[in-house]
Amino acid sequence: MTERLDVVAIGNAIVDVVAPVEDEFLRENGVEKGVMTLIDQDRAAALYAAMPQAREISGGSAANTAAGLGAMGARAGFVGRVRDDQLGRIFAHDIRALGVHYDGPIATEGAETSRCLVLVSPDGERSMSTFLGASTELVPSDIDEALLARAEWLYLEGYLYDTPEAKQAFAHAIRAVKAGGGRASLTVSDPFCVERHRADFHRLLPELDLLFANRAELLSLYQTEDLETALAAIARDVPLAAITLSGEGAIAVRGQARAHVPARKVRIVDTTGAGDLFAAGFLAGLVQGADDAASARMGCAAAAEIITHIGARPEADLAGIIAKA
Amino acid sequence: MTERLDVVAIGNAIVDVVAPVEDEFLRENGVEKGVMTLIDQDRAAALYAAMPQAREISGGSAANTAAGLGAMGARAGFVGRVRDDQLGRIFAHDIRALGVHYDGPIATEGAETSRCLVLVSPDGERSMSTFLGASTELVPSDIDEALLARAEWLYLEGYLYDTPEAKQAFAHAIRAVKAGGGRASLTVSDPFCVERHRADFHRLLPELDLLFANRAELLSLYQTEDLETALAAIARDVPLAAITLSGEGAIAVRGQARAHVPARKVRIVDTTGAGDLFAAGFLAGLVQGADDAASARMGCAAAAEIITHIGARPEADLAGIIAKA
Repeated sequence: MTERLDVVAIGNAIVDVVAPVEDEFLRENGVEKGVMTLIDQDRAAALYAAMPQAREISGGSAANTAAGLGAMGARAGFVGRVRDDQLGRIFAHDIRALGVHYDGPIATEGAETSRCLVLVSPDGERSMSTFLGASTELVPSDIDEALLARAEWLYLEGYLYDTPEAKQAFAHAIRAVKAGGGRASLTVSDPFCVERHRADFHRLLPELDLLFANRAELLSLYQTEDLETALAAIARDVPLAAITLSGEGAIAVRGQARAHVPARKVRIVDTTGAGDLFAAGFLAGLVQGADDAASARMGCAAAAEIITHIGARPEADLAGIIAKA
Repeated sequence: MTERLDVVAIGNAIVDVVAPVEDEFLRENGVEKGVMTLIDQDRAAALYAAMPQAREISGGSAANTAAGLGAMGARAGFVGRVRDDQLGRIFAHDIRALGVHYDGPIATEGAETSRCLVLVSPDGERSMSTFLGASTELVPSDIDEALLARAEWLYLEGYLYDTPEAKQAFAHAIRAVKAGGGRASLTVSDPFCVERHRADFHRLLPELDLLFANRAELLSLYQTEDLETALAAIARDVPLAAITLSGEGAIAVRGQARAHVPARKVRIVDTTGAGDLFAAGFLAGLVQGADDAASARMGCAAAAEIITHIGARPEADLAGIIAKA
C-alpha cells in the first residue's frame, strides 16, 4: 500500500459525553469554564453522577480534525489508542465512517477508552473534564512508520504531551513523516497545556513546519500580553503559523507575510471542536494547493459549521461548505 | 420506603445509536422505513459498519416514557435489564439524571446492553434496527413487587412481549401493581409487534385500565381497515384508550366518550420517541387529575417537543411546555 495520504493525525482517542448545563452547575461543581481539565477516576465518577442526561459523540481534538478532513474528502489517517471496549468500538466506527484510515492501536488490557465530560453553557462555551484512559498510554511503538511515511502532513495534538512516552512517540512520528518527504504540524491545544509544556513546545518548534494556536495559547507560549509581540515571535520560530482569534477570525503568519480572514457570523450552539475543525479546513486548503488566505477561509468555514450544533464531529455537508469557501 | 410513585414503567433498556441517512441508504441496506425490526448480531455488525458516524443517546420505548415523566417532575420508576458494561452505565446514568428511580436489574453476565440502530431520514421518519441484548432476558424475578405496589400506574411496553419470560414478568407486574391499589397500562409499541402478539394482547386487554396505540397498531389489533370500527372495539375492551394519529393529533376513548385533540405543528427533525413522549404527557395529565382531553393535549405537547430534535429523550424544559398545555 503506497498511496499517499494528505494528513495523518495523532492524538487522544476520546468519546465525548456531552450535556447542556447552566453556568451555575459549573460553579457548584468546581468546573472551570472554557478550558480542558484533567480529572481522575473518582472526580469523573462524581461529576458524571451530578451531570444531566448526556449524549455520547466521538471526539478527541486531533481525531476531530481527522474526521473533518475525512468529511471534506481528504485522505486522512488517525493514530490514537482505545481499549477493546464498547466506547472504543464506537470511536473506531465513527472515525472510519468518515473515510479516515484508523487501525487503533486497540488495547486488550489496561484503562478503558478515554472519555471527556463536555458541559455546554447556554452561551455555547464548553468546559471539558477529561478522564484520560487508554489514549494516554500511547507509546513510540504504536507509531506506524509506514503509515507516517505516506503522509504529506503530520498533525500532532499538544494534549498528548502530558505523558513522557507520548513525547517520544511524537518525536518518532516527526522523524517518520519527514523520512517520507512529509511535513509536521502541531496544535498546542489549550492555554493550560502550554503552561504545562512551554519549554518542551519551544524545543519542538524548530522541527515543525506549521503551528496551530489560538490567541490565549500563543500569548502563553511567549509569555506576553501583546498579540503583536507573539505574532512576530512565532513568525521567527516556525515557517507557518495559523492563529485563531475566535470572533475575530484567523491569521496565517508566514515570515513577514500575514493573511487575516474574518470569522463567519453564525448562531453558536456549542464551541466544542471549533479549533479542531479550523485546523481541518486549513490543512485541507494547504493540501489542495490553496494559498494561506484561502486555507484560513476554509478553516473558518469548517469551524463555523461545527459550532452551530452539539458535538465536535461534522454533521452538515462539510465538503460543500468548504468548496464554497 | 413507602412514598407513592406516579408511574413505574417496564421495558427494554436500550441505547440508541442515531445517524442521519438518505432514504437510498435504507433501500441499499434492506432496512424497512418507519418500523422497528429485530436483527441478530451479524446483521447488527454489518449494518453498523455501513452506517455513518452516529451519536449514542439513551432510548428504549418505555424508558423514554419514564424519562419524559421524570423531566415533567412526575415521580417515575423504570425496570429494564442492562449488562454491567459501558452502555449499561450510560443508560443508568441518563435515566437517573432525570430523577427516575432505576435499579436495573444490572446483569453481571450474558448479552451486552441492548442497542438500537436508529436511521433518521431527511423527512424525520426513523427506521429502527434493534439488536436485543441484555434487556430481553428480563424474568419475573426481576420485578420488584414492593416497587410496583407503590405505583399509581404501571406502564408496559409491548416490545418486551417478544420473549415468553417477559410475558410472565408482565403478568407478575400487573398483579403487583393492582395489589397496591394501582392501575395497569400497556403500549402495543409497533404494528409488527401487534402482528406477532395479537392473540396474547387480546388476552391481556381485560386486565388493563389503559391502552396506548397509534392508528396502524389499533387497526392491526382488530384486523380492520376502518378506524371507527377499531375505536368502537377498543372502547368495549378497555376502560380507557389513548390513540395517536400522528399529524391528526390524538383521541382519548373512554366508553362512549371521546376527546380528540389536534397535533401541534412543529418542524419535524426526528420522530423517534413521539409515541413514548405522548404516553408520558398523557400519564402525567392523569396523575395530576386532568381530564382526558387535557391529558391528551399534554401528550401532544410532549410529543411535539421530542420530534423537533435528534433522540427520544427530552431536551427542552418539558415541565414548562406541559404546564402551558
